[in-house]
Formats: sequence, structure tokens, C-alpha cells
Amino acid sequence: PDIACAADYEALAQAFIPADILAYIAGGSGHDITQRSNQAAFQHWAMTPRILADLKDANTALQLLGQRFQHPIFMAPVAYQSLVHPQGELDTARAAEATDSCMLTSTLSSVTLEQIATRADPARWFQLYFQTRPEDTSALVHRAIAAGYQAIVVTLDAAVQAPGIRAIRAGFQLPDSVKAANLIHQHPDVPIPRNGQSAIFNHYRQHAPSLQQLQQLISESQVPVIIKGVMHPEDAQQLKALGAAGIIVSNHGGRSLDGAPASLSVLADIRQAIGDDFPLLFDSGIRSGSDVFKAIALGADAVLIGRLQLYSLSVAGALGVAHMIKLLREELELCMAMTGCASLAAIRATALQPTLSGY
Amino acid sequence: PDIACAADYEALAQAFIPADILAYIAGGSGHDITQRSNQAAFQHWAMTPRILADLKDANTALQLLGQRFQHPIFMAPVAYQSLVHPQGELDTARAAEATDSCMLTSTLSSVTLEQIATRADPARWFQLYFQTRPEDTSALVHRAIAAGYQAIVVTLDAAVQAPGIRAIRAGFQLPDSVKAANLIHQHPDVPIPRNGQSAIFNHYRQHAPSLQQLQQLISESQVPVIIKGVMHPEDAQQLKALGAAGIIVSNHGGRSLDGAPASLSVLADIRQAIGDDFPLLFDSGIRSGSDVFKAIALGADAVLIGRLQLYSLSVAGALGVAHMIKLLREELELCMAMTGCASLAAIRATALQPTLSGY
Amino acid sequence: PDIACAADYEALAQAFIPADILAYIAGGSGHDITQRSNQAAFQHWAMTPRILADLKDANTALQLLGQRFQHPIFMAPVAYQSLVHPQGELDTARAAEATDSCMLTSTLSSVTLEQIATRADPARWFQLYFQTRPEDTSALVHRAIAAGYQAIVVTLDAAVQAPGIRAIRAGFQLPDSVKAANLIHQHPDVPIPRNGQSAIFNHYRQHAPSLQQLQQLISESQVPVIIKGVMHPEDAQQLKALGAAGIIVSNHGGRSLDGAPASLSVLADIRQAIGDDFPLLFDSGIRSGSDVFKAIALGADAVLIGRLQLYSLSVAGALGVAHMIKLLREELELCMAMTGCASLAAIRATALQPTLSGY
Amino acid sequence: PDIACAADYEALAQAFIPADILAYIAGGSGHDITQRSNQAAFQHWAMTPRILADLKDANTALQLLGQRFQHPIFMAPVAYQSLVHPQGELDTARAAEATDSCMLTSTLSSVTLEQIATRADPARWFQLYFQTRPEDTSALVHRAIAAGYQAIVVTLDAAVQAPGIRAIRAGFQLPDSVKAANLIHQHPDVPIPRNGQSAIFNHYRQHAPSLQQLQQLISESQVPVIIKGVMHPEDAQQLKALGAAGIIVSNHGGRSLDGAPASLSVLADIRQAIGDDFPLLFDSGIRSGSDVFKAIALGADAVLIGRLQLYSLSVAGALGVAHMIKLLREELELCMAMTGCASLAAIRATALQPTLSGY
Ligand SMILES: Cc1cc2nc3c(=O)[nH]c(=O)nc-3n(C[C@H](O)[C@H](O)[C@H](O)COP(=O)(O)O)c2cc1C
Ligand SMILES: Cc1cc2nc3c(=O)[nH]c(=O)nc-3n(C[C@H](O)[C@H](O)[C@H](O)COP(=O)(O)O)c2cc1C
Ligand SMILES: Cc1cc2nc3c(=O)[nH]c(=O)nc-3n(C[C@H](O)[C@H](O)[C@H](O)COP(=O)(O)O)c2cc1C
Ligand SMILES: Cc1cc2nc3c(=O)[nH]c(=O)nc-3n(C[C@H](O)[C@H](O)[C@H](O)COP(=O)(O)O)c2cc1C
Repeated sequence: PDIACAADYEALAQAFIPADILAYIAGGSGHDITQRSNQAAFQHWAMTPRILADLKDANTALQLLGQRFQHPIFMAPVAYQSLVHPQGELDTARAAEATDSCMLTSTLSSVTLEQIATRADPARWFQLYFQTRPEDTSALVHRAIAAGYQAIVVTLDAAVQAPGIRAIRAGFQLPDSVKAANLIHQHPDVPIPRNGQSAIFNHYRQHAPSLQQLQQLISESQVPVIIKGVMHPEDAQQLKALGAAGIIVSNHGGRSLDGAPASLSVLADIRQAIGDDFPLLFDSGIRSGSDVFKAIALGADAVLIGRLQLYSLSVAGALGVAHMIKLLREELELCMAMTGCASLAAIRATALQPTLSGY
Repeated sequence: PDIACAADYEALAQAFIPADILAYIAGGSGHDITQRSNQAAFQHWAMTPRILADLKDANTALQLLGQRFQHPIFMAPVAYQSLVHPQGELDTARAAEATDSCMLTSTLSSVTLEQIATRADPARWFQLYFQTRPEDTSALVHRAIAAGYQAIVVTLDAAVQAPGIRAIRAGFQLPDSVKAANLIHQHPDVPIPRNGQSAIFNHYRQHAPSLQQLQQLISESQVPVIIKGVMHPEDAQQLKALGAAGIIVSNHGGRSLDGAPASLSVLADIRQAIGDDFPLLFDSGIRSGSDVFKAIALGADAVLIGRLQLYSLSVAGALGVAHMIKLLREELELCMAMTGCASLAAIRATALQPTLSGY
Repeated sequence: PDIACAADYEALAQAFIPADILAYIAGGSGHDITQRSNQAAFQHWAMTPRILADLKDANTALQLLGQRFQHPIFMAPVAYQSLVHPQGELDTARAAEATDSCMLTSTLSSVTLEQIATRADPARWFQLYFQTRPEDTSALVHRAIAAGYQAIVVTLDAAVQAPGIRAIRAGFQLPDSVKAANLIHQHPDVPIPRNGQSAIFNHYRQHAPSLQQLQQLISESQVPVIIKGVMHPEDAQQLKALGAAGIIVSNHGGRSLDGAPASLSVLADIRQAIGDDFPLLFDSGIRSGSDVFKAIALGADAVLIGRLQLYSLSVAGALGVAHMIKLLREELELCMAMTGCASLAAIRATALQPTLSGY
Repeated sequence: PDIACAADYEALAQAFIPADILAYIAGGSGHDITQRSNQAAFQHWAMTPRILADLKDANTALQLLGQRFQHPIFMAPVAYQSLVHPQGELDTARAAEATDSCMLTSTLSSVTLEQIATRADPARWFQLYFQTRPEDTSALVHRAIAAGYQAIVVTLDAAVQAPGIRAIRAGFQLPDSVKAANLIHQHPDVPIPRNGQSAIFNHYRQHAPSLQQLQQLISESQVPVIIKGVMHPEDAQQLKALGAAGIIVSNHGGRSLDGAPASLSVLADIRQAIGDDFPLLFDSGIRSGSDVFKAIALGADAVLIGRLQLYSLSVAGALGVAHMIKLLREELELCMAMTGCASLAAIRATALQPTLSGY
């Protein structure tokens, strides 16, 4: 009864994660406006029950970037997972393998990307943050491909780190024991802003790749390159034109620009802009199978789970994460059965209906 | 003063129903999103007062499926009524007779359908759940007709049982003393899902009738067959085409798909889709005569009362149920008088007006 | 500081009126849905400030039914005023005279209409409830005209008394000491409903005048006849056609049909339906000068104050009522000055703007 | 962690400002309806993140009335600043100079306009209230120009002082030690209203300049004349036609007409009415850099900060004010970076998107 649904891991995790770390994880940037919007957005849609459908061969399988997946519920790249569990990303990888999920490993993993790749063999993609020095960026990409990662996911929405007020108030600091294991040998050469220069704009210039750098990465990469953090139809179109293999509609779980719209609220327009066949993933705010259902209905091929990953990891390690994914999948199947959808493609064709505010 | 209106039975019942059973009854599926929407939906409509109407022959009578009723307030099929009162469905039947209501007896009644039919003689319909084995389904239908039930109501929105989080947390279990009396001789042969098969989709396949099975029931039945659980205009049209005698717009009181729209919010479109003359009943969320009024205004011929039945039964048995129906009817008459409606048909023609949110 | 605005009398009155009587006064019918809507409706409109207007001859005067008034703030007919102050209607009359207001005396006044007329000499109109026996109705009208009342206001929205749940729960009963002084010599001959008859519809038939009775009153009356309780454009048009001298848009302060729309929300459509020149008054929910301003902007010629009358009367008798009217008038003038309106007619021409919900 | 963002000065100031003075500052007029709207209005807009922009020469500079400013965050005219800090306006002036802000000095400053001009040398404009006697008004203007103020800002939305209920209840009175230093030699000759005259309309007539007076001031002034308190497109157009050098869209931080719309909600229409090139400033409700961003996106060239000025002044004098401005500027830069805007002009072209209510 403690865990009656996937979302229950959120409440339960309060007992397993120290308060300052929890503030860092649960919070968004700024005042959590976008973080709250992300979840509220799902309440603006209702799912219409259907009762006469034929569900004989019903399943949740999908094909994406040449890979086949049993279900569309992937593990978002989440940094520093040993903050909440000693095994950190290693356990997450085992859970991903056990549940046929796809794991996205963060540049900022607390265990090296190679170790994660050794521990278990799920579908796995590598999430890349551009580094200040181009050679550091290249090195990361080469290591990921050498370790068998099947795609590169470039996160573009975090060039400036927007502080989260909740984490600041809680006094959160990364503990010495937790490190960005992949970056341990880099030189920390953050240039000092010249007098009168804006610290913000300066920082941005150092951490955001130029269009050329991005294009180069895409054209030279041996594996598909996917861009994470897309929130505008024109950016999506430009990325498609640039040769990206897919995009991830995301506002970084409300951790990037506070005051950005809910990720779900821009999804349909972006799908519309890039056409039906271009790979599009979605994240930010998903806490249940009905959230997954709604994201798919509005245009996502698959979804990423961020915070629920850490919450379930903190509670019971690999087992917790695997259980959480299993619950989400069953919740999704329940929605599909009751709305008469025998496949993910059928969801896409099924209209949600807007709820009246207050409903 | 404790019971100033029908809805008061809800609050009062708290003192008469054990907490775990109350959680099971009061709750919806999942997180009660739809269950709450059902009631909130009524607040989005206001009734326009009229002051110059002639109410000389005002009454609440209606004709439905060849039967004449004094008023449009029927008793929804509600399982296991001895959970809240020792006489269970037997008392409900007496109340239905005393108040000229129509009683829908559930497949899952805690007293056999034959006993209920003996105890009192209200208008009565039998609510049918399809059973895993076709012969079990047929047997139920034959027994119902033999016992004098005047219509078969097939509930189609509960092929998969969606667990209610509230009931799970309260630790609700059906007590040993309460049984599905009509099914006591059936073999419980739930097939075990084969390895790798989805439990959800599997369960659905076993409990949802195929279109053929439905069509067969309709064509062979000696009494009208009504379908309960309709939430989409196209399903309504398909059922009409299939030969159903009527439909019940319902989301099972929020106990089927959590996240479905409020039942009231789909009503007008469904009435529109099937035309003015096709029998259409409504339930989910009704707690007052003004709710009844609004459902009729939006297209219902009559309405079913679910939870209020159990609440009033728990408080005072047959007397409680009869009193509750009487109050609802008077509340409905008050709305009719003050809006200048001399008949149910006049309500249908009377425009409600949307309230502004916050009004 | 206790009384910084007219609305403050509401809070202060809690200390002056016994709880059960307060429940009766403050509450609406049913669950106070309409009563709350009435006040909330004003929040949906904002007033646009203007800064370049010429306010040289600014004033709040108006002409209505051949009478001239210094301002548009009238006293609604409110029954049984000695419930809250020993002088009851007598003090109200003095306050009306002192503040150049117009007083509407209720059929159900706790002091006779003749005594009220003797005590002070404000503009005064008589509010009429039709009585079960036509001769009783005629007698009231004749007495009122003989006593110098300058108009008859027929209230049509209270043919059935809808009980207020709040008052019922508080155990309110009219104390023996308070009586309908004008009706003291009538025979209380309420007919008993025949078996099987609906009490509600029956009661309605006895207390609502027929169209003929209404027409007769209008055609025979020596003073203008105004109809109170209009909430629908068609009723307004029909009354105008019938010869009524004016109408009062009102839902009886939420004390008639619970679930009716806010009075303010139907005002503009009704003004539109009857044209600019037909006398239209408004009440229900007014608590401040900005509420008065908004009602006038949406089409009212003048407004009636209901509950604030009783609240201020309870606190300080005639002085309280006069102070309350003075505050309302100043609040209205402030709104006029800041929106650049030099006259009531100018308000009418000034657009309000809808507020966004949440603003 | 106490001051993680500019808005934090609001909470912190509670410990530095006596309760009655805080009520006077924090409150609006009337019931604070407009004051609350002002802040809520910003929540109705979300900022769309963009990820592919080139921010090489990003900056926040602007040109206004022939002056160049590093950023668009100005200090609103705020009366009686020694209420919260012994140095009052003197410290504010130092902070304005240190942060490259522009300071608007109030007619009602608690230190003379000449002293303020001596203490520091920021860009500075003088805010003018018309005085009852024309010669007093002229004198103020001449002194301001003599002291080097570079523009005259005429506030037109406060001809009638609308009392703030919050301040009244808190018993706020201007302490004897705080005076309108610029007006100390004027004769307080408030004429007594003649009998029967409205106090409100009378007061208005004395404190609002006529159109002629305004036109004369504009045509004779050696420095640009800007009008503060504009809330309607037509007023804006008329002022432009009259020769005003610019306008300030403002409802006086909710301290003028209570019930006026949020200042932000009228901004776009006013910009639209006066064209792209006419100088337009904005205030009322700004508490963060994202608020500044939104005001600029909807048409403002620059914004004024009112209450935050007093809050930060109370906490740490000139240092507090300077820190607050610095934080606002960084917050603005963060929004610009994350929405891909390299200049204020780019913001103007960037669409915000409305949030769904509840988002
Ligand atoms: C603690 C935490 C760390 C994160 N670290 C990364 C990261 O290193 N790289 C990245 O692209 N996204 C990162 N994200 C964002 C997630 O990939 C994902 O976009 C987001 O969590 C989805 O929203 P949700 O948490 O509501 O599911 C992080 C999110 C959280 C909560
Ligand atoms: C405790 C409970 C048991 C129910 N059992 C059945 C049932 O056996 N068959 C059925 O068709 N509907 C069943 N329903 C649904 C009702 O028939 C009806 O659709 C619903 O209660 C209407 O919503 P309301 O409770 O808000 O009035 C049940 C509802 C409740 C609350
Ligand atoms: C206690 C009370 C008694 C009332 N009695 C009468 C009455 O006798 N006749 C009538 O026409 N309206 C009566 N009304 C309704 C008022 O005339 C008026 O329509 C209503 O109070 C306006 O709403 P407000 O109270 O929000 O201002 C009464 C209202 C109250 C609160
Ligand atoms: C305490 C206080 C005093 C003010 N005094 C003046 C003033 O003397 N002249 C003026 O034009 N505006 C005055 N204002 C209004 C401000 O200039 C500005 O319009 C308003 O504060 C902006 O809203 P904000 O406080 O939400 O930023 C005052 C505001 C406050 C809060």
C-alpha cells in the first residue's frame, strides 16, 4: 500500500534522501514555476474512454532510430546518481536492462561511462554537455562510442546554470565524495570575465556550442545525434535541417529557464512542425502512465523519466527503479486498454480532450 | 437539520460506514481525478430563473422503453450492498418500490437477483457483467428474465478493474461475509498469463465481450438491452446501430479510467450524436436535484444515483434510501418551478448558461 | 479604522447579530452557490483609469420614473428588520431620508407600512408579494398608495421559498416578537395538498400571480409598477410589453434559486434586450462603490442595497445605515473621478474590461 | 541564502520596517485588488526558451530621450524614503549612480531635490505633482531644472488620494520627523468644500491639472516632459499629440484606483496605439528580472522599480538598493540568454506565450 503507483516513490523518497539533496533534486530553477507547470499541464487533458475496441494484439512496442523497444519509457540522463544510492548509475543500468528500458547516461555521471557500460547491457545512449575546450568534448564522444553507446544526446538547454532557490535555501553543495567521474582529468580553466563584462552572457558564450560546432559533431558522428532541450517549433525545424537524428522536447524538468512554459504545452506544435516521422522524445513532469499516454497522444514517440528515477533508486536501488518502470508501463497499458488503443500508434490517433479548468 | 438535503447523507454516512469500506465506496479509481471532476462539472452550469411561466399541470413524469415512471431518478447498479447494511439490496428494493423509482440490480449483488425480486416489486432492470465463460453469461441473463427483470443493462466500462488508490491505502478487502451471491456456483477459472504477456491486456481480453457476443445478446434478448459506460459519441452511434435499446452515459462514477472527462462534460455531444428520441440515461456525480436538472437539460432522459444510495442505506436502511430519493425529487421540482419548467421535456428545451470560472 | 469602507459593516455586524439570525440573513438559499457567485461576479471586471477628463460639473444625480435622485443607491426591500434592531424599518426610513436615498418597504416589514411612512419622508416605494387570496393583495396595494408610496414593486422570484441550508443548520426560527405587521389581520388559509400532489408545484401555484393578475394590477395601478426578480432577457421584454414601468434585475441576493447565475452576469444582456431608456434597477451582491459603478456600467440606472442595510442597522441604527450609504456614495464618486466619468450617463458609456481569471 | 533573488528583499524587509509603515508601503489603495493583480499578471505569460541563438555581443543597453543607459531598470519616484532609512533618498541616489540606473525623484521626497542632486550624480529625472496654486507648480519645475534634472515626469493618476485599507487598519500616520522637504515653504491652503458639494469631486478639481495647464508645461519646458500613470490607449495617443516626450504605463503600483486592471494587462494595447518609436516606460508589480523581461516583450522601453527600492533600502541602505538592482539585471540577462535574445530590441520581437490558468 505504500507503493500503489509509480508516483508514490516521490513521497517515499523523502525518507531516503537528505533534505538538502532532496531540495536540489526535487526543485527546479528559480522559484519552481516551470517545474510546477510541468506537472500541472497534464491535468489540462482528459483521456476519452472507448468501449468497443478490439485489443487482441495489443502491445506497447516501438521502433526508434533503427532500434526496437518493448515500451516507450526511457531513463532520462540524470547527473550524480550516487547522491542518492551508493551504486548510483550502476544500479540504474541494471534496472534499465531488466525492464527493457533505454538508459541515457549523463556527462555528469558519478561513475564513468565505461563502468556503467560494463555493469549491464541495456539499450544505452550518451548525453553530452559541450565542454569549454573542444578537445574535451571530442574525447567524451569518442569514449562513449568506444564503450558501445548507440546514440549521442546533446543537451542544449543548460548553457547557463540557473540556480534553484529551493536548493540555495537548503544550503545544498555537491559533497566531496560525489564527482563528475567522466571529467576528472579535465583542466578546470574557467576564464575570468573581463571588467564590465556580464558574467551571465560570458558564461553562456563558453558553454553553448556554436552552430558550426554542432553541425560538425552531427556530420562526423558514427551514431545518431539527438538534441535535448527543444521548446520551440523553429528550433526543431532548424535542428532537423541541420541533420539531427531526433529531438527531445524538454525544459530540463523545470531546471533550465524558470518561467518557461510547461514542456507538454509546446509538444503538439513541435510535432506538427517537424512532421510525423521525425523521431521526437519528450520529458519533464511525467509521474504516471497516464502522463506517458498524454505525451504520446500529443506527439511523442517515447518519453524520458527524470526525478522518478532518483526517487525509486534512493528507496530500493536497482529493484526500486525496475519496479517504478514496471508500474509506469502497467499504468500506460491500463490507459491504452480503457481508451481502446491497441498500439502506441493508435494512441497518437486518439484525441484527448481538454478539461475545463476546475474539472 | 442533519439532513437538510439529499447530499447530507454523504457526510452523515461517515459515522455509519467503517473507514476502509468508505474509502472503497467514496473513492474512484486511481487518484480520484475523474471522481472529483464528475462533481465539479455541475458547477460549470447555472440554471436561469424564469418568472412568468404557467405551471398548472407541472409534473416530473416520463415514458421510457415502454414503461411509465413518475420521476427520472433511478437507482444505479451498485455491488455488494450488504457492505453497509445487513439487509443490503433487499432494503434498496423496498425503497425503490415505495418511491416509484426504478432499481438496477448489479451482477455483483450480495443477495441473489431472485431474492431481490421477491422482496419488493419496483420497476427493475438487471445489470450484466460479461463472465469469462459464455455459458455463465447466458445463465445470468436467463435467470434475470425469469425473475421478471424488465431490461438488461450491460456494463462495458469495467473490463479491467482499475484499483482505487484510496481503497488500497485504507487496506480495503471484501469481507468473507459479503459475496457475489449470483456467481456463487461459478468456477473461478482465471487463466494464468503466459510468460511475457501483459497482465493488463490479457485481463481485458477475458472480460470484454467481443462485438459479436454483444450483438448476439442484443438480437436474442427478449427484453431491451441497454449499454452502460458510454463516453464517446461514436461508441453511442455504433451501439444504436447494433440494436441497443438505449445507452447510459457514465464513467462508472470515476471508478473506471482515472483521467477520463467528467461524465457531464460529454453528455450533450452524445445526445446530439444519437438524436432526440433514443433513450439515454446518465450517471456519475449526481448529489442534488439541481444536478439531476442539469443532466436532463443537457440531454438525459433519466439519471442513476450511485453512491448516495449506499450512503442513505447505511444511515437508515430502506427508510434512508426512500427519504433520499424523495429529497432529490423535491429538489428537482424546486429547480423546475423556479426555471419555469412544467415538465421534463420543458427542461430539455431550457438553456443552462455556463458559469464563469470563479463564479 | 473599524469602518474604513461600507463593506466593513458586514464583518462588524457579526458582533451585533445573534448567530442564528445572522445565518438567516447572510446565507442564500440552498448551499449559497448563487449568493457567493453574486459577489465573485464583480471581480471579473476591472475599471479602466482615465487621466485627462474634465470633471468640472461632476455629480451622481439621476432621473427615474419622473422622480429626481441625488444618487443611485437605493434601499432594497428587506423583511423583518426588527430582527436586528429594535427600531427596525423606522430607523431605516430615517436614514433613507437623511441620505437622499429611496426606500423600498417590504410586504413583510416588521412595522406597518403606515407607521414607516409617518416616521420619515424619503422617496419610498412599496414592495408587494402577491397573497393567496386576491382581496388581500388588493388591500395591500390600496394601503400603500394611501400612505403615499410612489411606486409598487412586485417581487416575482420568491413564489416558492427555497430553504437556506445555513439557516436550517443554525436552527433559525422567526422569533414570536417579530411579525409581518402588514399581514396581521389576514386569515392563514394555506390549502393542504391533495394526496399524490407535489408540495412544491402546489405551493407555486398558490403564490405566483397569473399573467392576468399581473396585467390587471399594472393596468389598474395609480402609481408605476416595477417587477423585481428578473433574470432573463425574454422575461424583461415580456414585462415591458405588459406595461411594467421598470424592472429590477435580481436573484434576490442568492435567496431564490440556488444555482442561478450571478445577477451581474445577466445584466448587460437584459439591458440590451429592453433598450436604453427603459428603467432598470439592479441588486444582489453589492458591497462597495465599485460594485455600484460596475452595475451602472453594465446597464443599471440605480441599484438596491440588501444585506448591508441590515448589517449597518444592527451596528448603529439609523446612523449606521446613513453612514453606510454615505460611504458607498463616496466610493462610487472615487471610481467616477478616477475613471473620468462626470455623470452616471458617462459611466454607462465607459467600457469596463474583463479581468483574466487569477488577476 | 537569505537573498537568493531580488524579490527576497520583500520578505527580509519585514524585519526592518515597522508594521504600520510596512502596511502603508506594501499595500495598495482600497482592498489591494489591483496591487495583487499587478503581480499575478506576470504569471499569465511564459517565456519561450530558444537554444540556437548567437549571443556574441549580447547586452542590455538602450537609448532613451537622447540619453544612453546600460540597462532598462530605473528607480520609480517613491515618496518619503526616510520612512525606512535615515539617509532616505540620498542613499538611493548613490545606489542609482553605482548601478548605472536612472533615478526619478518624487515631489514628496523627504530630502530636498537639491540635496539629492548634490549627493550623487546618476541620470536623474524629477517627478512632479501639480500643486493647488500654479505658482507652486512652476517653482518646483524651475528648481528641478536648475538642479540638473534631465526630465520632468508628471504623475496624473493620483489627483484623488484613495486610502489604503491596510494602512488605515494599521493606524499609519506620517511621523512628524518625515516631511515633504520640497514643499516646506508652501501655504497649505486647501479650500473647504461648499455645503452639498462632493468632497471627492472637489478634491479632484484642485489637484488635477487642466489640459491647458498640461499643454503649457509641455510647451514651456526646457527638458522632456513624460506623463506617468497612463492606463488607456486613447489617453496615450492624446498625450503624444499634446507633445509629451513619453509616457509611463502605470497604475501607481495599485495605489491609485483599486479595481483598475493590472498594469501589465494594458501594456501591449498602449504600445500598439502609440507606435514603436514613442518612449514608453512601465511599472507596477515588478519583482524579478523575468518580470522586466515580460514588460519589455510587451512593449516597454524601460521599467521602474517601486517597492523593491524601499525594501532593499530598509535592509542595507545604498548597498541594499545597489545589490537589488544588480540582481534584477542578472536575472534579466539570464532570461535573455535562455530565450536567445542578444539585445532589448530582440526581446521586443520575441513572442511570450500565454500560460494556461493553473499552469
Ligand atoms: C537531479 C537532476 C539532474 C539532472 N541532470 C541532467 C544531466 O546531467 N543532463 C541532462 O541532459 N539532463 C539532466 N537532468 C534533466 C533530465 O534529463 C530530465 O530532462 C528531467 O529530469 C525531466 O523531468 P522530470 O524530472 O520531471 O521527469 C537532470 C534532472 C535532475 C532532476
Ligand atoms: C461501490 C460501488 C459499486 C458499484 N458497482 C457497480 C456494479 O456492480 N455495476 C455497475 O455497472 N456499476 C457499478 N457502480 C457504478 C454505478 O452504477 C454508477 O455508475 C456510479 O456510482 C454513478 O456515480 P455516483 O456514485 O457519483 O452517483 C458502482 C459504484 C459504486 C460507488
Ligand atoms: C434578510 C433578507 C430579507 C429579504 N426580504 C425581502 C423581501 O421581503 N422582499 C423582497 O423583494 N426582497 C427581499 N430580500 C431581497 C433583497 O431585496 C435584495 O434583492 C437582496 O438582498 C440583494 O442582495 P444583497 O443582499 O447582496 O444586496 C431580502 C433579502 C434579505 C437578505
Ligand atoms: C510608498 C510608495 C510611495 C510612492 N510615492 C510616489 C510618488 O511620490 N510619486 C509617484 O509618481 N509615484 C509614487 N509611487 C508609485 C511608484 O512610482 C510606482 O509607480 C509603483 O511603486 C510601482 O509599483 P511597484 O511598487 O509594484 O514596483 C509610490 C509608491 C509607493 C509604494
